[in-house]
This record gives sequence, structure tokens and C-alpha cells, in this order.
Amino acid sequence: MPVFHHYALSGPCRYIRLVLGEYGEEAEFREIEPLARSEDLLALNPAGTVPIFVDDNRAVISPAPVIAEYLAETRGVRFGEDSLIPATASERAETRRLVAWFGSKMHEEVTKLLVDELVLKRIAPKSRGGGSPDSTIIRAGRSNIHYHLRYIGYLVERRDWLTGNRMSLADLAAAAEISCLDYIGEVLWNDNEPAKSWYARIKSRLSFRPILADRVKGAPPTPHYGDLDF
Amino acid sequence: MPVFHHYALSGPCRYIRLVLGEYGEEAEFREIEPLARSEDLLALNPAGTVPIFVDDNRAVISPAPVIAEYLAETRGVRFGEDSLIPATASERAETRRLVAWFGSKMHEEVTKLLVDELVLKRIAPKSRGGGSPDSTIIRAGRSNIHYHLRYIGYLVERRDWLTGNRMSLADLAAAAEISCLDYIGEVLWNDNEPAKSWYARIKSRLSFRPILADRVKGAPPTPHYGDLDF
Repeated sequence: MPVFHHYALSGPCRYIRLVLGEYGEEAEFREIEPLARSEDLLALNPAGTVPIFVDDNRAVISPAPVIAEYLAETRGVRFGEDSLIPATASERAETRRLVAWFGSKMHEEVTKLLVDELVLKRIAPKSRGGGSPDSTIIRAGRSNIHYHLRYIGYLVERRDWLTGNRMSLADLAAAAEISCLDYIGEVLWNDNEPAKSWYARIKSRLSFRPILADRVKGAPPTPHYGDLDF
Repeated sequence: MPVFHHYALSGPCRYIRLVLGEYGEEAEFREIEPLARSEDLLALNPAGTVPIFVDDNRAVISPAPVIAEYLAETRGVRFGEDSLIPATASERAETRRLVAWFGSKMHEEVTKLLVDELVLKRIAPKSRGGGSPDSTIIRAGRSNIHYHLRYIGYLVERRDWLTGNRMSLADLAAAAEISCLDYIGEVLWNDNEPAKSWYARIKSRLSFRPILADRVKGAPPTPHYGDLDF
């Protein structure tokens, strides 16, 4: 069985869990310590980051956008027209642009800042990356989240899903980031009705259930986190 | 004819110029002011960054890794086996991992820091993003370059090209970053013979000539920049 290295409150890791779920694929999950430097991890991925997907043929795949393309190529084909990657080159490009937008830009500007400062640094021992939260970083993340939510709302009002009339990798990448922020109660849902109704649609998918069941030790989710009607 | 928005001393823009060159594709080049905020650019790409590729069918494609995949899909296919993307899913994944490594990680940790601080901020008027260079940022870039060069050397000693026995998108992405650093004399070639001989091979390709002919007003290249024997 493939091995999947990840941690629970990581947007890029959740993105791949959703892709695996949509394709009905199983893997042996190995949870890492998020902030700690690990030689084992560096041996698999010189960037030292998760997610890392180790396939049955021992191919070691990372980072998240590359794993998603790899899964689409090796698993998605059997879904044909219903795959998570659209059929035309320009639609595929738009999907990839938005995967980069949410999975990299929003991740770096919002999710990583808030999750690291508000949760990971707090629950990790000092020797494994723990420390005091930095209020400047928290303010930056809280300020940046608004335009990303507005952008989701803007897109789904015009396109139904983020890249068109079908769910694609872009929706999963964006929902994965949002779900981490929702876990820690940082999404002000009343701000943006279209984004909320898009998230409600994704949240009710079968592939989302394991993510809604996530519980991080020492950091319980906000009460509405698992509710499909929030 | 497609339109390509870019600026000369940008690794991601040069990466796409190399892909266009390898595929024998032409485009109308439009040079932007690198540090200035432009509403026209934001209308094409909400991230406000170049490169942006506008195809004949008006599809607007960005950022660089997405443009490269788009060109491979729409132009590369006619090259069949000789395309810049390898044939198997795991080799393609390795190519994409290294495109992300050099085109994003090395770009953010090295090229962008040194080019912005040493050139762009110096030659731009204050109203268009100019200012004094930050010595802390310059030190960081100069410190990070070594392990990226070592990594190139490590890979090409084992694989001939970065991802295998054929040149791929990964080589072009890495060489594009290196070429910007070489323009400003920040690559210490004597440090790493395998990386140097790999760069010499790419530098001698036809697709590289326009890049070696680049001249930025107010910032001439180091003397050896255009030499194929450096």
C-alpha cells in the first residue's frame, strides 16, 4: 500500500487527502511532528516538507501540487470525463493557477501563519519548534484572509465551482486551506455568503469526512467545525 | 500572435522564454516595470506577477510553471518523445518537483532577493518601487545560493541532466534562475565543477541566445555573462 506522510492541520496535506478520497484510494498514513526537523523526512524530500506520497513502486512524490497531478495521471484516468482535471488545456491551466493561488499563496499568507502561531508553536515543546506566538504574524494572517474569501466568493458566483461548472483540484486545494482555518475558528462565515455555500457543498462530500473527524491533541476544533449546516 | 508579459532579469520569465525557444514558438514580448504595481497586470493576473502568456485564443495563462505545462500540452506534443516532459508519471513528478524547487524555492530564497536588492531597487525611481538595498536580505541570498548550486552538482553527477538522461523543464527552470544570478556576478563557478559544466551545456543551446543578449539599462552584466566558455 502507498505511504502518505502528513500532519492533520496542514492545508497541502489535507488537499492530497481529499484527492485520495475523491479517487477512492487508500494509503498508510504516517503523521509527522509539524515543526520539528526530521532527517527521515529530509531523506525523502530535500525540502523537508510534507505531504510526501510514496507509491507502491517506491516512487517518492512531493510537494502537494505534484502529488495531485501524479494521482490524477495514475489514478484519475479511470474516472475519465469525471476527473478532477478539466479537459481543455486552458481550463487545466486555470485549475493549476488556482491550485497555486490557494495552495501556495493563500497558504503562505494566511493558513501557515495562523496555524503555526496559534496552534503548532503552542502545543509543540520548545525543543521541537514550540514557542510564543508572534502577534505581528497573526495580524498579517487575519488581515489577508478576507481577500482570499472574497476571491472564492467572486469566482463561485460566476462559475459555480472555482474553475468552471465542475469540481476540480482547485476546489479541493482551496477547501483544504479553508478547513484548517475553520478548525481554529478563523473564518468569519457571515462575511461572505457565496463562499460559505461553496464550502458547505464541498464539506458534505464523502472525501471530506475524515478531515471533519480530525482532532489535534491540545487544540480542539471550534464547535461548528464538523457541522454540515454551519 | 501570442503576447508574453515579462521582464528581463526574472528567473520565472526567462524559464518561459527558454520553453518558447525550445519549442520554436514566437510571441510578442511586452516588458513590464518589475517593481511597480500595475492595474493592467492585475487585470490579467490577480497575483500581479509576470510571466503572463496570452494565447491567440485569448486564454490568459500564469504563473510560470502553469505556462510551461500549457505550452507543453499545446505545443510540446508535436515533439513527441523529445518533449521537455518525461514519459512516465514518476519521472514527470520528479521534473515538476524540481521545477518547483528551482523556480519557487531557489527563486524566493536566492534570485529574487539578490536581483531585487542589488539591481531592481537601485535602478527604479522611488515612486516605482526603488529604494536602498537591504544588507540583511543580500546576506541571506548569498548564503542560500551555495546549497542550490551544490544540489545541481549532486543531481547532474548522478543523472546527466537534472531529472534523468534528457533535458527537461527542470533544467530550464534552474538555468533561468542561475542565468539571472550570473548576470549580476553572484555565481562563484569555481565552487562547483559539475554544476558549471551542466550550465555550459544549457548555455550553448539556441534557446539561450536571446537571454545572453539581455542588457538591463543601468545594470550591465558581468564580463563573462555571455561567454560560452566561462
